[in-house]
Amino acid sequence: MTQIRLIDIKKDILAENRMEADEIRQKLRGNGVFMLNVMSSPGSGKTSLLLRTIAALGKELRMGVIEGDIESSVDAEKIARTGTPAVQLRTGGACHLDAPMIGAALNELNLAELDLVIIENVGNLVCPAEFDTGSTLSAVILSVPEGDDKPLKYPLIFTVCQVLIINKTDYLEGSDFDLAALKDRVYRLNPEIRIVEVSCKTGNGMESWTDLLRKEVADNRD
Amino acid sequence: MTQIRLIDIKKDILAENRMEADEIRQKLRGNGVFMLNVMSSPGSGKTSLLLRTIAALGKELRMGVIEGDIESSVDAEKIARTGTPAVQLRTGGACHLDAPMIGAALNELNLAELDLVIIENVGNLVCPAEFDTGSTLSAVILSVPEGDDKPLKYPLIFTVCQVLIINKTDYLEGSDFDLAALKDRVYRLNPEIRIVEVSCKTGNGMESWTDLLRKEVADNRD
Repeated sequence: MTQIRLIDIKKDILAENRMEADEIRQKLRGNGVFMLNVMSSPGSGKTSLLLRTIAALGKELRMGVIEGDIESSVDAEKIARTGTPAVQLRTGGACHLDAPMIGAALNELNLAELDLVIIENVGNLVCPAEFDTGSTLSAVILSVPEGDDKPLKYPLIFTVCQVLIINKTDYLEGSDFDLAALKDRVYRLNPEIRIVEVSCKTGNGMESWTDLLRKEVADNRD
Repeated sequence: MTQIRLIDIKKDILAENRMEADEIRQKLRGNGVFMLNVMSSPGSGKTSLLLRTIAALGKELRMGVIEGDIESSVDAEKIARTGTPAVQLRTGGACHLDAPMIGAALNELNLAELDLVIIENVGNLVCPAEFDTGSTLSAVILSVPEGDDKPLKYPLIFTVCQVLIINKTDYLEGSDFDLAALKDRVYRLNPEIRIVEVSCKTGNGMESWTDLLRKEVADNRD
């Protein structure tokens, strides 16, 4: 009973959200801004990836960051320390960011002076996948300690993202994480997905990610 | 606008859910059954903890398991291989288990022949914390690779659980995970919470968890 009601409501919310997401995409296009939505479980390395990306591309691209958290602003503070404009969205319990929240955050950024906005979504492998944020590209991070079976259990997020970033590859040695099995599971869900392997801790493989992102931003401008 | 509607609906759902959870608790009490709800992010080690718990307590307690997953039944299959009755709940997209789902799963178990039912909730540090499942005890697992800042960002789950299980302590060496800072953050949210440290991989510290659970089940019978 409860469930059936929940599902109907969700459909309305998702349709309304999608309309606002399309408006956001139009606004971004008008300003020549690329928006990347980064999603993952808590602790997979979203903030670390952002910091590495800012360090690598900060001189060639003008960036802004939208941090989504249920509570606290520790991540936005870390970003702000790099000199990058950061907006903290505190969802106050909500388990994902939606288009209206992103719309409100974008109003706090000067889009005319930006090339790239990166959204760090709420740490959650489930709900954020359902809500279009209006972004140009969506990426999911999966870190090695989480295990190679996650695509079997949380398929939607691997289906809606264009990029999978495998992080914490420094944990691969001596672990039973099966990289080939993971990739096979992901490609079955999403044959077009691009996969990069990085360690945000050591910096290994970061160029594969920043090269991909640089090219996407450039292609989007043409 | 979307958000305000969402919150109102959520209140109704949570109130309805709470009523069903209370009915479940009454039914369990009538059958002398203890129910444990295990929550965590994806990949923190819920299934590994269950397998270790079954191996340690399976001879003294008659157990049943309810597996919650969005898709797949890989976890229930792992449990069933131990000879423990297991019910798989496939939520088909829903990011948490609620009381009606647990009520339906309990109908598939013979409560008169069980001492302990363990729920493995959907891997999610956010939504499951909001839904009372009717369980006697709630435990959250946080694994070392997720980082020591999680209580700052996902406070609710650390507030509603009576036990925190710190898993993957085998990763502590050489990591920058600050165990004292983590505990301090958790105790501020929940001064009564009990904390155990385990490695489901090596088995280290497992007795601290199984001793706690054994005592809780016994106390609940008196």
